[in-house]
Amino acid sequence: MTTVLRAEASDIQAIMAALGARARGAAAILATATGEQKDRALHAAAAAIRRERARLMDANQQDIALARDLSAALLDRLKLDDNRIEAMARGLEDVAALPDPIGTVIARWTPPNGLDISRVRVPLGVVGIIYESRPNVTADAGGLCLKSGNAAILRGGSESFLTSGVIVECLQEGLKKAKLPNEAIQRVPTRDRAAVGVMLTMRDAIDVIVPRGGRSLIERVQAEARMPVIGHLEGICHVYVDRAADLAMARRVVVNSKMRRTGVCGAAETLLVDRSIAGSCLQAILDDLIAAGCAVRGDAAVRKIDSRATPASEADWRTEYLDAVIAVALVDGVEGAIEHINRHGSHHTEAIVTEDSATAERFFRQVDSAILLHNASTQFADGGEFGMGAEIGISTDKFHARGPVGADKLTSYKYVVRGTGQVRP
Amino acid sequence: MTTVLRAEASDIQAIMAALGARARGAAAILATATGEQKDRALHAAAAAIRRERARLMDANQQDIALARDLSAALLDRLKLDDNRIEAMARGLEDVAALPDPIGTVIARWTPPNGLDISRVRVPLGVVGIIYESRPNVTADAGGLCLKSGNAAILRGGSESFLTSGVIVECLQEGLKKAKLPNEAIQRVPTRDRAAVGVMLTMRDAIDVIVPRGGRSLIERVQAEARMPVIGHLEGICHVYVDRAADLAMARRVVVNSKMRRTGVCGAAETLLVDRSIAGSCLQAILDDLIAAGCAVRGDAAVRKIDSRATPASEADWRTEYLDAVIAVALVDGVEGAIEHINRHGSHHTEAIVTEDSATAERFFRQVDSAILLHNASTQFADGGEFGMGAEIGISTDKFHARGPVGADKLTSYKYVVRGTGQVRP
Repeated sequence: MTTVLRAEASDIQAIMAALGARARGAAAILATATGEQKDRALHAAAAAIRRERARLMDANQQDIALARDLSAALLDRLKLDDNRIEAMARGLEDVAALPDPIGTVIARWTPPNGLDISRVRVPLGVVGIIYESRPNVTADAGGLCLKSGNAAILRGGSESFLTSGVIVECLQEGLKKAKLPNEAIQRVPTRDRAAVGVMLTMRDAIDVIVPRGGRSLIERVQAEARMPVIGHLEGICHVYVDRAADLAMARRVVVNSKMRRTGVCGAAETLLVDRSIAGSCLQAILDDLIAAGCAVRGDAAVRKIDSRATPASEADWRTEYLDAVIAVALVDGVEGAIEHINRHGSHHTEAIVTEDSATAERFFRQVDSAILLHNASTQFADGGEFGMGAEIGISTDKFHARGPVGADKLTSYKYVVRGTGQVRP
Repeated sequence: MTTVLRAEASDIQAIMAALGARARGAAAILATATGEQKDRALHAAAAAIRRERARLMDANQQDIALARDLSAALLDRLKLDDNRIEAMARGLEDVAALPDPIGTVIARWTPPNGLDISRVRVPLGVVGIIYESRPNVTADAGGLCLKSGNAAILRGGSESFLTSGVIVECLQEGLKKAKLPNEAIQRVPTRDRAAVGVMLTMRDAIDVIVPRGGRSLIERVQAEARMPVIGHLEGICHVYVDRAADLAMARRVVVNSKMRRTGVCGAAETLLVDRSIAGSCLQAILDDLIAAGCAVRGDAAVRKIDSRATPASEADWRTEYLDAVIAVALVDGVEGAIEHINRHGSHHTEAIVTEDSATAERFFRQVDSAILLHNASTQFADGGEFGMGAEIGISTDKFHARGPVGADKLTSYKYVVRGTGQVRP
């Protein structure tokens, strides 16, 4: 580490190249580590995080002191407390409890040539994670990469630099206790933002980049990265209330989808109501939303039925509010809902409320989104709720990984073929 | 088509944008087409190719007349004959015979929240294929995209422009007979190479690019593409003969791996022999290779044992000859073989010959390649031999698709969640 810190000022390119080479070396060792060894490292890292509570709080206080100009929301994300420290430790233990994805035989078959062919899960290699200020991402991402046998290069927000540094030390203590290489989890050892640009060009050293953060970060990464990206764009999630909906259920699902937590990517941003039942149910649904503190914006047809709605503009259909605001439109049945969602949505998560299962199946087939729910809240869009343990994000891409990205999606596979001397005619 | 051809000279950007918009529209329809409908289109396209034999030969003759300056090898790839036309038609029928990958439930489970979660296979959307002069790729790629519910934008070599045009007409006749949109399989309607550059920037219209061709094409695509790429780099494939090999089997596997067909990506380019048995087996193996017409280049240790080998330079370990030439090195057991392959290989296909299954398992675990074979020829690296039907290539990437890429790898998935009114606490 001393060498790296000495080089810092003079040559970010050299620091990053050295980091990449060390990650590549560690990845080769991690790829054949046993599940037991990786889990031992995760448990030891969790123990270190609990033990280093005071050092973590101290580093976090220094980060906060340096970051005085940040908004209250950003400061809230940055700030550690006892609960958050405990949650990081428990998160690592939860990841340890998952089955080891590596070495799993995904499929095995014998074609007519008599070869015994297996498709076996292997790590991707080196995963680069670029994220904003929440320090817990350091522990989550490091733990998921370790579980999936990948070396990690972590580049967190510069505001959480000192806090992340202590977390990485705890993760590395875990690696050491399990006799795994320290370089399996590394952090970019500089606050300099130029390091991000360099990281995105390191095609030989980094196999995939995972950006976690706001739209501008994701778009920058998608534009500049010379390696594959697991992208997570915003969640412009919809709830569609069909003519065959159970009204009581619709009210529950809508208000939960929007208001349980407004700042998560699975929060609903747009409510679509079947025009043919709007007269009889729209006001009751809006009653619940307004009572829960939600501002309502509506198209002309909505406002004709309920004047509490303020006018929605074209931009509202494409806005991720992440706040107590909802846009409401009337649509012509499920067909209109499908059309609206495919045109305006972000292909993240959408729900339909209906008692007609044929209508639900049509919604499932024709809406092009990662997660589609029938009679359930969009707030279930979460790797934990899906039974995957932790997630590194929810992918709105179709390539490689879509929806919640757990440890098993940070993998590839190889074909292992057992013969008895076969040659090809 | 008339409008497009009129615009051609003035604005390739506009032609390509129109092509992309039509492909996107067709993809939405294809995504929900039934397996029966897609197979009907494939059979009708095969029939059209057989019926249009004379027009195909005629267009091919014109292409060849225009392409007089090409090398004999390129001309051979370009030229159609009765067998090749029949092979294209049969290839489409073989793809039709595969199970429909779309709509398959990959996994289904219920986490503690009681939701019934399915992971369902869906198409990627629009696939762009950029390839060189072999006209049959037009039929193969178009057929695989159709089977997997993807719209295809095909950009073949300019030398095969007229031949490809007739093949695409046959594919479109099949689409019409199955009442599927014509725009599901489109060809870039210009020879202008600038169209490739434009295609690689069309991130909104094209979901994935598949380059098929030589190293320079693949590298250009990987450098310029703003969307995901399924890349197929060269195959620097190895055969390792272990100390515990059955010599007769080793001779058969080595000569078949190298000489069955030297121009395919699964052909062996390097032979590694365990130093401890080289004295007793190397000459017999080289006898077979030389008798089959193969030139042998060896490291110093090889040439000490068999002076028929000419000197191998460092570059030989990284060369894909695609010809009757092999590079031979002695290595220190399986560990030396693994080290050599991971350092010099292209992560494509490698074989080990040994009677020691623990050694084979170690080779499987530690060599980082798409396909690993024990006691079988590297020439089995082929989607057909793997029982996948046709393949669009063999991916040396780890992301999304690795190894032979059949119709089922041109897919993504969505999560379909069935609830009973659940909201998230």
